[in-house]
Amino acid sequence: MTELNYALDTFYFLICGVLVMWMAAGFAMLEAGLVRSKNTAEILTKNVVLFAIACTMYLLVGYYLMYSSDAGGFLPNLGVLLGGEHGVDAVLAGGDDAPYYSARADFFFQVVFVATAMSIVSGAVAERMKLWAFLAFAVVMTAVIYPVEGYWTWGGGWLNELGYSDYAGSGIVHLAGAAAALAGVLVLGPRRGKYGKNGAIFAIPGANMPLATLGTFILWMGWFGFNGGSELKLSDVTSANHMAQVLVNTNAAAAGGVIAALVLAKLWFRKADLTMALNGAIAGLVAITADPLSPTAPVATLIGAIGGLLVVAAIVTLDKLRIDDPVGAISAHGVAGIWGVMVVPFSNGDASFGAQLIGVIGIFAWVFLASLAVWLILKAIMGIRVSEEEEYEGVDLAECGLEAYPEFTVGGNQ
Amino acid sequence: MTELNYALDTFYFLICGVLVMWMAAGFAMLEAGLVRSKNTAEILTKNVVLFAIACTMYLLVGYYLMYSSDAGGFLPNLGVLLGGEHGVDAVLAGGDDAPYYSARADFFFQVVFVATAMSIVSGAVAERMKLWAFLAFAVVMTAVIYPVEGYWTWGGGWLNELGYSDYAGSGIVHLAGAAAALAGVLVLGPRRGKYGKNGAIFAIPGANMPLATLGTFILWMGWFGFNGGSELKLSDVTSANHMAQVLVNTNAAAAGGVIAALVLAKLWFRKADLTMALNGAIAGLVAITADPLSPTAPVATLIGAIGGLLVVAAIVTLDKLRIDDPVGAISAHGVAGIWGVMVVPFSNGDASFGAQLIGVIGIFAWVFLASLAVWLILKAIMGIRVSEEEEYEGVDLAECGLEAYPEFTVGGNQ
Amino acid sequence: MTELNYALDTFYFLICGVLVMWMAAGFAMLEAGLVRSKNTAEILTKNVVLFAIACTMYLLVGYYLMYSSDAGGFLPNLGVLLGGEHGVDAVLAGGDDAPYYSARADFFFQVVFVATAMSIVSGAVAERMKLWAFLAFAVVMTAVIYPVEGYWTWGGGWLNELGYSDYAGSGIVHLAGAAAALAGVLVLGPRRGKYGKNGAIFAIPGANMPLATLGTFILWMGWFGFNGGSELKLSDVTSANHMAQVLVNTNAAAAGGVIAALVLAKLWFRKADLTMALNGAIAGLVAITADPLSPTAPVATLIGAIGGLLVVAAIVTLDKLRIDDPVGAISAHGVAGIWGVMVVPFSNGDASFGAQLIGVIGIFAWVFLASLAVWLILKAIMGIRVSEEEEYEGVDLAECGLEAYPEFTVGGNQ
Repeated sequence: MTELNYALDTFYFLICGVLVMWMAAGFAMLEAGLVRSKNTAEILTKNVVLFAIACTMYLLVGYYLMYSSDAGGFLPNLGVLLGGEHGVDAVLAGGDDAPYYSARADFFFQVVFVATAMSIVSGAVAERMKLWAFLAFAVVMTAVIYPVEGYWTWGGGWLNELGYSDYAGSGIVHLAGAAAALAGVLVLGPRRGKYGKNGAIFAIPGANMPLATLGTFILWMGWFGFNGGSELKLSDVTSANHMAQVLVNTNAAAAGGVIAALVLAKLWFRKADLTMALNGAIAGLVAITADPLSPTAPVATLIGAIGGLLVVAAIVTLDKLRIDDPVGAISAHGVAGIWGVMVVPFSNGDASFGAQLIGVIGIFAWVFLASLAVWLILKAIMGIRVSEEEEYEGVDLAECGLEAYPEFTVGGNQ
Repeated sequence: MTELNYALDTFYFLICGVLVMWMAAGFAMLEAGLVRSKNTAEILTKNVVLFAIACTMYLLVGYYLMYSSDAGGFLPNLGVLLGGEHGVDAVLAGGDDAPYYSARADFFFQVVFVATAMSIVSGAVAERMKLWAFLAFAVVMTAVIYPVEGYWTWGGGWLNELGYSDYAGSGIVHLAGAAAALAGVLVLGPRRGKYGKNGAIFAIPGANMPLATLGTFILWMGWFGFNGGSELKLSDVTSANHMAQVLVNTNAAAAGGVIAALVLAKLWFRKADLTMALNGAIAGLVAITADPLSPTAPVATLIGAIGGLLVVAAIVTLDKLRIDDPVGAISAHGVAGIWGVMVVPFSNGDASFGAQLIGVIGIFAWVFLASLAVWLILKAIMGIRVSEEEEYEGVDLAECGLEAYPEFTVGGNQ
Repeated sequence: MTELNYALDTFYFLICGVLVMWMAAGFAMLEAGLVRSKNTAEILTKNVVLFAIACTMYLLVGYYLMYSSDAGGFLPNLGVLLGGEHGVDAVLAGGDDAPYYSARADFFFQVVFVATAMSIVSGAVAERMKLWAFLAFAVVMTAVIYPVEGYWTWGGGWLNELGYSDYAGSGIVHLAGAAAALAGVLVLGPRRGKYGKNGAIFAIPGANMPLATLGTFILWMGWFGFNGGSELKLSDVTSANHMAQVLVNTNAAAAGGVIAALVLAKLWFRKADLTMALNGAIAGLVAITADPLSPTAPVATLIGAIGGLLVVAAIVTLDKLRIDDPVGAISAHGVAGIWGVMVVPFSNGDASFGAQLIGVIGIFAWVFLASLAVWLILKAIMGIRVSEEEEYEGVDLAECGLEAYPEFTVGGNQ
């Protein structure tokens, strides 16, 4: 190992981290485009502030928890929070570094992952949740809920011992975010006017398709850092080849997701539904994330394409179940995430269906139940849903005291 | 050659590829900003899906064709598609790599170039072409038309033998895209209401200038990868100096294009026309792309500035010829592309005017005629133009079944 | 020093430069989101064109001035402009390079900094300044005013001799931009309708909050290049660790700024004001820029948080003083910039409060007075303020001859 290896690997981590940070903008734009204008400023606020909370809580608590122990257990070493020594102290202290790249670069890369998991939640609970209840949830999610299950695999916990294989986190990040979102949506209930009598489902179109499209492109771009950085090393021939394969496959899966979702939407709804194409891209990206290295590029395209089919079907199904997810986050990150985790053994001989299934169940159960508890506590303490009148008038004025597009809409409460 | 060189060159390729992929978002935003709101969702759909199609078709067919032979011919080696062995198989098989960087990194960089060429087309045919006819064209363009002429130079074909010099593709990518667009526009005809009696030309303003500006900035940023990655190597002093020179010149040419286009528009139309400044930036970028390495930075500024003047003149001229290009793509990529190719010999002693001229003619003739044939076949089979009523109401509802801005416009069919 | 070190350090500079260039888009979106729709196309034009002017003038004049001498003086060596030899000639001539990375990469990184300083001005003078007066100011600012004070520290002038410590330019770039903006605002006066009788202050909401949020995310991302590149070296363990620390701290400070500004706004105005959260992010970033290396991450969070508190207080205070800054640029870049410079000695033992204070006073005095002179001269020669009627109707039509959102607003002059 030379100083140059160290420098190159650190730089690689940091650049990938910058790309993942950029995904925060992608989620913000995607969600802002898919809600109504009267709720846009509030969802933007949620996205900016959840990123800030995630970075702060992970710095103060979450990173310690996640990498506090490698003993293969269910619970991380809580002692580190009470002053116990651990290697991650080096990050904050600015002291010794990890063997082959800067420990602070590792922190930078990890911290933007936490924010990604949390960003998934904001879209699903859009247009009716209280801002401050959401932010309180973000504190717990990024400080505790995510780090605990992150520890299970990446921190050396029981799922790692079991052989659960999840390269960049189809399960650990995306399914986790979706599970937290689902718990929130179930406690919160659907938006007013979304579901009518006799099974009627009313479409509530998003206000700004260019924003949603921009958000998807940003996520697509940022995913090259998300998956590309998860190789954790660049500076030798094998690692460099791996990173290249990962980027080719990530791109191929997104492309497959777009095409499959578009064609299915055309056949099913008779229209080339842009929002389905966008969700197809995200589903393809989520699906390949559990193993963007092992498949060949055509297989990666296929994995993404099936993700694209699943997301369309899941969006329709959730609506029939009256589970109201305004942006399709549970479908794109949860359903495609499960698909991504379960398909790993097909191309990666080191993975087993059993371990993958246990991983899915374990992650979902923990995040869903822990989140459910937090949502219920928040509901009891402060309430999590805005009043009927605030929902009708839009949460922007109620929560933020301003409008997202004050000159473009008349009244703002359509 | 060390492992570190290999890793650094691979990383450099991948990062440049990420920047070029980002240009897809730039084209989407630019075009979405320059069309009317009633056609915005459809152009967004086209941009997302063409990128997905380009990535998939180039993976399955185009890349093989483009790098299938180095025999200096007109036609690539079609045998590779029928199972013939070739080095590019390594990309899909995940086997051996190129000598000094990952072959998959090369594929990743090349595949986003194809998408760029195709993105140029979507803007020119906006607001009246059938979505699925466009997508069918995208399949042929990215699988065959572009790879064939790409092979001519970058794959070792006859233009390469001849000494045609086109560093990052003013001709190979941008003129090619513009030629395909021109063929499409001629078959399609102008938008209803664009041209009146007695030579009257009616302005049809774009709906969203911030989007168009954002798109231009994205393209400007992405171009650093487009041109910077075309040095193909970074890991020695000469290559690193070259990349730095390329970025300085790329930026300088864009700046020159903006200033020249703005001043000319002010003198000509008495207004500081933002759309002309944006097209000036793109024209400057296109113009320097054929050789961003040889000129000094002030000369690069000048090359870009002349590109900026040409694009304004070309946009006005095309309108007089009743060739309706809603976003100015043919002017910015075609006219400035020709200028870029032809100016190379002034600063690069290895290039000759003769070879450059033959390159321009050859690329234009092939892409224009092949595209014309495809457009005419598509017109005969499925029709390429939406109905008069659909055009009046906007293609968003007809093709995508949704509106881009459902709350911002009244009626949506102004 | 090996060729690989040279290549890696050059690449690092170039990628950081690309990220800083991207900040130009961030300023454009932020400002376009915070003005009214009738003035949006013009502010976009200003942002695109000022970037082009900055790149051109710094190439032709500014870079020479800034690095023309290391004699520790107040004035740079003007002789270089009259043909005197200097090392920076190498950049334009394409000749010999700096010792450990490409001199052209250094130029590329520096030139995007100039544009940043200038971008700060455009927001503060928005909605009432003549476009061409602004552009004329941009010429002088980027050719002379900024390079002179940049020379003081980074070119080896008197502030450098004195020990003034400003890692990436809280003072040299951000305070400088704010000082030029303040001079412009004082000469220009407030927007009509902003201030009424008896101290009344009227809110003028920005037209597009998603754009403002996007702009903030872009700036946040670009700042990783702004601060990360200012280490000036990557290729050894110490430098790589430094860059990682810088990115962690930059992110932490932005996060702290968001949270503090949001909470203060909630307590003060009873609303979770999105624009304050966005300005909090920028203030946090500006504050940490003077030293993103020395503090630990929690301290960086705190420095950013205090920046976030200061920006809210400063925005309210400037409004009481009837200094009309539509986007809060003077508060975010000036007040938080001073805070950032002055807090350096708390965590960096090499800095002294005396030298920091002299730096703040020196930079502010030079930029403010020189800018004031230029604004006054421009006012005398061509006028700097649009007519009352043009301001009422919006500067878009008057200056650019087009509307930013022609289909979304009725009349456009609300």
